[in-house]
Amino acid sequence: MQATVSFDRNLPLVGLNEKGQRTFFDATFDPSNPAMYASPMEIVLQSLAACSMMDIISILGKMRRAVLTLDARLDSQRAEVHPHVFTSVHVTYSLSSPDCSKAEFDKAVGLSMDKYCSVAAMLKASGCPVTWETEISAE
Amino acid sequence: MQATVSFDRNLPLVGLNEKGQRTFFDATFDPSNPAMYASPMEIVLQSLAACSMMDIISILGKMRRAVLTLDARLDSQRAEVHPHVFTSVHVTYSLSSPDCSKAEFDKAVGLSMDKYCSVAAMLKASGCPVTWETEISAE
Repeated sequence: MQATVSFDRNLPLVGLNEKGQRTFFDATFDPSNPAMYASPMEIVLQSLAACSMMDIISILGKMRRAVLTLDARLDSQRAEVHPHVFTSVHVTYSLSSPDCSKAEFDKAVGLSMDKYCSVAAMLKASGCPVTWETEISAE
Repeated sequence: MQATVSFDRNLPLVGLNEKGQRTFFDATFDPSNPAMYASPMEIVLQSLAACSMMDIISILGKMRRAVLTLDARLDSQRAEVHPHVFTSVHVTYSLSSPDCSKAEFDKAVGLSMDKYCSVAAMLKASGCPVTWETEISAE
């Protein structure tokens, strides 16, 4: 997998994947010129949920369960010293579905977090515990 | 650090940081409905460069060197088996500056990659070698 990230005199940084699709990365260097987009580490944190949610949507689809909405709330801790790596991440997944039980949802999330999710695997391998819980939300 | 990622019946996933700034994550489930945004793993790869580039821009600023453009080209390998983690990443940084030498640029990149960049530190701790090189581009 290849990509580029470019800075041209001003933030945000512009990421380009191989298809030319863009992602923006920002930071607040100048308080009078606040960031318009999220920071790289905020985006890495979100990527953990996004990567697993792609799995979960796919797994629930194979289980023939309908996904109306699926949300993840992320809560992380970072080391106080440089390079400020993540030291723990907890994800709460919330599903709205007319036909999926909590047990089925837990199975899908567990398959992602234990087997398929690349970002979760890398974070855990780096020494950062990744924990999760699920809830079924009312439609 | 907290964040949310939401799916509402259709892709893309929408990530929100604590300031309400949005990031989009996409995937191609249906070939007739191609992705509009990059995938979570493409975005993690770009986050490595974005995180280090924020450092590099800041460090060169402290060294009173002008950054006209700064670009990163990323080349990665992934494991063939699930969960398809990154197994190596190489970053080529290219700087256009009227007053920064290659030695100064190398020092700034090295400080980021060895000390400050959170994403590089986590990837390396996960077992993925992260290598880099620099070039000064003509203005």
